[in-house]
Parts: sequence; C-alpha cells; structure tokens
Amino acid sequence: MTEPAYVAVDWGTSSFRLWLIDRAGKVLAERRSDEGMLAAAKAGFPAVLQSHIAAVEAPDHLPVLVCGMAGARQGWVEAGYVDTPAPLSAILKQAARVSGEARDIRILPGIAQRNTKAPDVMRGEETQLLGALGLDAAGEALVCMPGTHSKWVRLKDGTIAHFSTFMTGELFSAVTRETILSLAVAGADAAEDVASFQAAVKAAYQAPAFAANLLFGARSRQLLFGGTPAAARETLSGTLIGVELAAGLSGAMPKAGITLIASGRLAMLYRLAFDALSVTVSPVDADQAVRRGLSMAAAAIWTK
Amino acid sequence: MTEPAYVAVDWGTSSFRLWLIDRAGKVLAERRSDEGMLAAAKAGFPAVLQSHIAAVEAPDHLPVLVCGMAGARQGWVEAGYVDTPAPLSAILKQAARVSGEARDIRILPGIAQRNTKAPDVMRGEETQLLGALGLDAAGEALVCMPGTHSKWVRLKDGTIAHFSTFMTGELFSAVTRETILSLAVAGADAAEDVASFQAAVKAAYQAPAFAANLLFGARSRQLLFGGTPAAARETLSGTLIGVELAAGLSGAMPKAGITLIASGRLAMLYRLAFDALSVTVSPVDADQAVRRGLSMAAAAIWTK
Repeated sequence: MTEPAYVAVDWGTSSFRLWLIDRAGKVLAERRSDEGMLAAAKAGFPAVLQSHIAAVEAPDHLPVLVCGMAGARQGWVEAGYVDTPAPLSAILKQAARVSGEARDIRILPGIAQRNTKAPDVMRGEETQLLGALGLDAAGEALVCMPGTHSKWVRLKDGTIAHFSTFMTGELFSAVTRETILSLAVAGADAAEDVASFQAAVKAAYQAPAFAANLLFGARSRQLLFGGTPAAARETLSGTLIGVELAAGLSGAMPKAGITLIASGRLAMLYRLAFDALSVTVSPVDADQAVRRGLSMAAAAIWTK
Repeated sequence: MTEPAYVAVDWGTSSFRLWLIDRAGKVLAERRSDEGMLAAAKAGFPAVLQSHIAAVEAPDHLPVLVCGMAGARQGWVEAGYVDTPAPLSAILKQAARVSGEARDIRILPGIAQRNTKAPDVMRGEETQLLGALGLDAAGEALVCMPGTHSKWVRLKDGTIAHFSTFMTGELFSAVTRETILSLAVAGADAAEDVASFQAAVKAAYQAPAFAANLLFGARSRQLLFGGTPAAARETLSGTLIGVELAAGLSGAMPKAGITLIASGRLAMLYRLAFDALSVTVSPVDADQAVRRGLSMAAAAIWTK
C-alpha cells in the first residue's frame, strides 16, 4: 500500500462518503454512511469525521478536504459561495479552514446565483463539475446532475454561467410517502416497469403543466383499470423526471450535447428518460467525478 | 321554525358538513367537523352521522342524502360512478341506499372518466356542479373547482364531457411540511403577501415545466436575499396554482368563460390568481352549490 496523501470527503445532506487517497490520486480506502449533514449536526461533525478517519487508520497529520453541505450555514463551518459567473478554478481558492482542529481540515465553497429572478445555490455539485470537466474545458456545456435536488448547469470555457435546481427527487419522496398517492404505490416491489416509466416521461415532457394531473392519474388508473403498485411508482417517477427534462431541454443545445453526471440507479433512470425522448447524453460517473474534483482541489491546496 | 324535510351531508376525505333542510330548501341547522372519510372509517360512519343528527335534533324518520367520499370504496357504502359523458341528471338516478339502517340514507354516485389516456374520478364535485349549473344548463362551460384535489370540468348542455384532477392542494401541504421547503415557511404568520403570490402565479403560468425549480427558488431566495416565511409560503402556493392554471387554461375557452366554484380562502386565492393572469371568472360559492345540489337530488328522490 502506498502512502496516503489526504482524506477526501463528500458530505451531503443525508450521505457521508470518505476516501483515503494517495499522492497519485489512487483510492486506498473508502467509507460510506448515512451520517449526512442532518445526522452530523446532531452527533457533532468532528466526532463523525474522526470515527471514519480512525476506521481507515489515517495518520494524525493527514489533511482533510471536504465538499458539500457540511459547508452550509446549518453545517459544520460555513464555507461561503463563489458567485456566478463562477470559474471552476475559483473553487480551489476559497476553501474555508476549520479552526480549533489539530488536523488541517478545509471545506470547499458552494456556488451562488445571486439573480433575483432565478436565485439558486449548490454545494457539492461544483466539485463534481470540476472532476468531470476539468479546469480548462473549452466551449459550451450543458450538464444534468440528477438527485434529491437535481442541477442543470450551463458552462462556458470552464465557467458556470447559469444553473437551475429542480427538487425532483425530494418531490418523488414526498408524493409517494405523504399524499394519497402513497396508497397507489403501497407494497410496490423492486420490479422495474420501463414501459410505464418511459410513457410517463413522454407524457410529462409533452405537457408539463399537467404534472399535478398526471401524478393523480396514477391513482385514478389503478382505481378504474387496476395495475401494479410498481407501475404506479414508475409512473410517478417518470412524470416528475419528464417535467424536469422539459425544463432542462428547453434552452439552446450546445454542440457538445448534454453531459449526464450520475451514479447507480439514478444514472439508469435518467438514461432511460433521455432515451424515451431520443436525446443522446454523455455519461460521467458521479462518484468518480467528485473524487477527481476533490483530488484536483487537494493537489492545488497542498501541493505547491 | 318550519318542519325539516331531510338531512344533507357533504362527506369529504377530511371534512364533514351536515345541514338540516326544510321542504323549501331553507337551512334550519348546520354542523361542521373534521370527521371526514379518513376519520369516520375509524370511528364508524353510522356513529359519526348519528352524533350530528342528534345534535341538530332531527326527527327519527327524516331521510339523509350524502355526497362525497363516503361513497368511495374505502368509504361507508360504495356508491359507484356515472361514466363520462355524464349528464348531471344521471346523478339523481343512481344514489346507493345504505342497508341495515332504520333511516332512509342514500349516497350519491361519483363520476368516472374511463379513458386510459386520462383516467379520472370525482366524488362530491358532481353535486356542486349540479347545484351551480342546474339540470338544464345550455351551451359549453369550463368550471374550475379548487381544493385538495382541484377539478377542471368541461360541460356541454348539462353533461360532463371531460374533467381533470390536479392535486394542487395536497402538493402544497406535502411540500410545505415534508420537504426542505418546510424550513422556508417555518413560523410564517397569517399575513398575506399578494405581490409574492401573484408574481409566482405568473412565473409558473409562463414556465410550468420549471415548477420544481420555482419551488426550490423560494428557499434559495431566502438564503441569498432574505425574505419572510410568509412570502415563501405565498410563493409556493402561487407556483402550484400557476401551474394548475397553465393546464386548465390551455384548451379552448367557451363563450361563457370560466366558472369558479369555491369558498373562503381558496376562493380568494384563485380569484387573485386569475386576476394576475387577467382572466375573468364567474364566481359561485361552493358551500351554497353543494347544498343546492343536494336539495335538488333530495327533491328528485323523495318528492315524487
């Protein structure tokens, strides 16, 4: 095993991921848990971090670089924002140092769009963008980053020009758990229903104003025609993603097309959604992107 | 006090309303409670009804006419549906009698749209439509009925041709209570913010695909620019209603314009929303409409 150079942490609202990384950017150890910002705010950020650092047996002197919601106002230390238009390189220069810790711990800033017509914020996705696109990306890019709070980002020559957050994932969670639609999806098994999903994506893409009607339709369809809970769940998921795509695809399309930064099940779902609309995307793995972004930032901060 | 002729009940998902009515349709007594279908399914429908009948001191022989979710599959007695195209007069002919009760208790049917592309159901609103439009309404009508599950209904010559349910009210409840937006509205006082509401209606009407982005914007705006919880709440409400109006107003407009059947705060909100879009509506009070519809049905059933 090579010598570890630093610890990289992606600290989101509801998830925590830590990697022990060597000077060449190679992952030596990994930790994943659900001790995101919300849980860590109760347990204490230093204690949560230390428990995972101890588990990977990182040396005492090793520095730690963090991105994500740990830098929010309700997080550990507020790491501020880089304002749009935001060069990705600016992220590297504005990391906030956590005081009172023996270790050198820094949290990368988020991005703020201080536009009264379209105010928006991101924390964590900027590091994925850095890792996916690099510092010297030329030309225009349109990036879709699915999630609890999906981001659609327009960049030009390595600078974030504009972005929009869609709370698609959180809406899916709320409508399937906290509304009458919970009856429609109750007992849904893991079986996928690609046909229902893609039909819902298309319907919502074509008539996004009918979103609240298409959602209710999943319940009415079951009452009048039957159908499985899994089909209803896929219909709800497809409807919400279809509306998001209607907005995300409504602007000018860059020559390079769309980059989809996602991992796991979300990557699969969004691939199916874009396929349903015959839109080609260039996929990038989100886990790899955030690790690469953290590595680039760590190299810039500590290797001088 | 004149002699009571029957008891009329509007039994919704989460609300119960009962009126003691004389032969001329005059209200002699009224009861309101939150013992809707969900609560009554636990407490028992006969017991809930009897407690309110006793409170208004209705004679033992008095018949009871019910509309709404008490006639749903999960309700008291399933009252079936009239299928679209549904003449309003058909409602009068298909009331379901509750068996095993000394009293003559009947529940009016709902309306079903058995269209695989746009399946939909209503229970209770058909009785409001009957009361608002009467049995012999000529010409085309477009009716907006705001609520937990808003209905937009197209009628021709007294027959329901097509309708769409929008779960606008329930979405508002879910997003303000069960998502990160609950932070934005926490502590909101009753103060109204008409400017924020109408601006949100317009923005959502113009770009309904951006609904999930406009909702999140209420939180981002507060983070970056401040603003009251009440302003955020009105923005969320205006966004969801604006998207509903974008769909509801997307079809052909009948000569008679739009009828808005609503009461109380919802009537006020939707009036403001239509005003923001410079759309004129003919208002009808929903409480009066449902009472009138129940009276018409009671007269048809028991006065022969």
